[in-house]
Amino acid sequence: MFNKNVKVIDCTIRDGGLINKWQFSKEMVRGVYKALSDAGIDYMELGYRASTKMFPPGEFGPWRFTTDEDVLEIIDGVKSDMKLGVMVDIGRVEPDDIKPADESPVKFIRVATYVKDIDKAIWLANHVHEKGYESFINVMAISTVNDYTLMNALKQVEAESHVSAVNVVDSYGSLYPVEVSHLTGLFRTALKTKGVGFHGHNNLQLGFANTIQAVHDGAAFCDATISGIGRAAGNCPLELLMAWLKNPRYSLDPVLQVIQDIFVDLRNKIEWGYLVPYMITGVLNEHPRIGIAMRNTEDKDKYADFFRKLTTPECANMEN
Amino acid sequence: MFNKNVKVIDCTIRDGGLINKWQFSKEMVRGVYKALSDAGIDYMELGYRASTKMFPPGEFGPWRFTTDEDVLEIIDGVKSDMKLGVMVDIGRVEPDDIKPADESPVKFIRVATYVKDIDKAIWLANHVHEKGYESFINVMAISTVNDYTLMNALKQVEAESHVSAVNVVDSYGSLYPVEVSHLTGLFRTALKTKGVGFHGHNNLQLGFANTIQAVHDGAAFCDATISGIGRAAGNCPLELLMAWLKNPRYSLDPVLQVIQDIFVDLRNKIEWGYLVPYMITGVLNEHPRIGIAMRNTEDKDKYADFFRKLTTPECANMEN
Repeated sequence: MFNKNVKVIDCTIRDGGLINKWQFSKEMVRGVYKALSDAGIDYMELGYRASTKMFPPGEFGPWRFTTDEDVLEIIDGVKSDMKLGVMVDIGRVEPDDIKPADESPVKFIRVATYVKDIDKAIWLANHVHEKGYESFINVMAISTVNDYTLMNALKQVEAESHVSAVNVVDSYGSLYPVEVSHLTGLFRTALKTKGVGFHGHNNLQLGFANTIQAVHDGAAFCDATISGIGRAAGNCPLELLMAWLKNPRYSLDPVLQVIQDIFVDLRNKIEWGYLVPYMITGVLNEHPRIGIAMRNTEDKDKYADFFRKLTTPECANMEN
Repeated sequence: MFNKNVKVIDCTIRDGGLINKWQFSKEMVRGVYKALSDAGIDYMELGYRASTKMFPPGEFGPWRFTTDEDVLEIIDGVKSDMKLGVMVDIGRVEPDDIKPADESPVKFIRVATYVKDIDKAIWLANHVHEKGYESFINVMAISTVNDYTLMNALKQVEAESHVSAVNVVDSYGSLYPVEVSHLTGLFRTALKTKGVGFHGHNNLQLGFANTIQAVHDGAAFCDATISGIGRAAGNCPLELLMAWLKNPRYSLDPVLQVIQDIFVDLRNKIEWGYLVPYMITGVLNEHPRIGIAMRNTEDKDKYADFFRKLTTPECANMEN
């Protein structure tokens, strides 16, 4: 019953860190790393790799930088077959911060990009490929891109890069399953020698459903996070994805245990998951930052007021 | 862009009442009725109609019985084109509790049944049809029925009843979209002259996604509840469904307003929505009652322990 070609990329710490500036303790991250290893997860994206010149350490926690030293510390002594990686943003990482792969515990690097920056993304993906890393490209904010521009970019990735896969990233959580199907089809058409992945957000309670849809349409890499942790409405919950995939190499028990031990309490301290303000930004195909800002005010539960503000002509942000 | 043939049946009070024994105040239900009317919703299922001999009034609130008198009180003076109805369970209602439709504000009646009771359901549906009501049958716990038994039951409904539609009811929240597609197809095949509806639960965060799938496969009636309120993991959220349907006759604003005014506060008092224990019962194709019971103990957050209890041979409930 299971699809043996599908691989899971956990981004619990990387995407979850968008909520709290990656201020997760090393003990917590070690617990997550151990649980995911025991669960048989294929890939774990531990955090971003970024330049300390752009992000002040202290304000930002360790997983904004994910140095090799910090990675070595948390994995020390844990039995694991899981492949570790980091995400890099165009323009926010110094190539010199990335050592050759054979000197690093990190083995894959994902380059996050907007379509407009695809040339830079290909350069960076090729740079890390040459250093020995498995490389991926994540195309963010995919719900705002027209097919013509997207196809040109994807053909370029196909011709010029060595990535294992390119991810459809529904940054705004705006996509319905039919749209995921359409986009996965475009990616598969353009990327004849490379895989396709999917990264969903849960603004419309479709993070998991859209991941299912992408797999039905041939995606081979699925992003997920424990308990769905992630910016705003969060991501596809790993526990749901594993139960659906039914691959005997996965074990659900360690993931449920780490939810019980860490994430129930964490959810009482930081907020993520479906809420009407995030539904509204999803439906309007807007970045969730306006919803996040609204949740940090006294009017955090005034959903109808928020909807009116965003949809009436008086709102300069939406008028044009 | 919209599907003009799809009609929405709100069951906010009826399914939400499963959480608190229908102890919603008349003021609250009137607010919901007004919001749904202003939003242009097609049908509202106000509650169950049931015998006071079986359910002690007091312990059970007014929407367990949904008398014509109580309905008249809450709708008094509100402008509305919405069709009002009640749900009846086989064996829990006295036919004499149902007056002729032309003497009642209630205009549709849905008969909830398990497949094994389909003969009783058809009798009751025909009884209320003869009294002038629009009739529906909801086939509950559909994830536990084999196709052969189901098809025989549906052919009988097609031949012997006058229902507008038969609902696929995923009581356990166990279905994945491909299974919804399969079942909707079976229903459409058997019910040549009647509609098909879908009622989802959100155990796997698929309540909305499965409703979308059912519509893609020809379902014409969608159940939903405001803010997804409903037993355990809850239902397909009305606000998501309306935004997706895009029918110009619907207005999202009154629904968001009633969420802001009533449901944010209500959610702080009674629990519904996706939680790992409900995911576990969904994945195991079990009634959510064991998850609800667990949430009422001190061990309410011990998800992994709950999973082990249900999946190890020591658990008599699951062994056979």
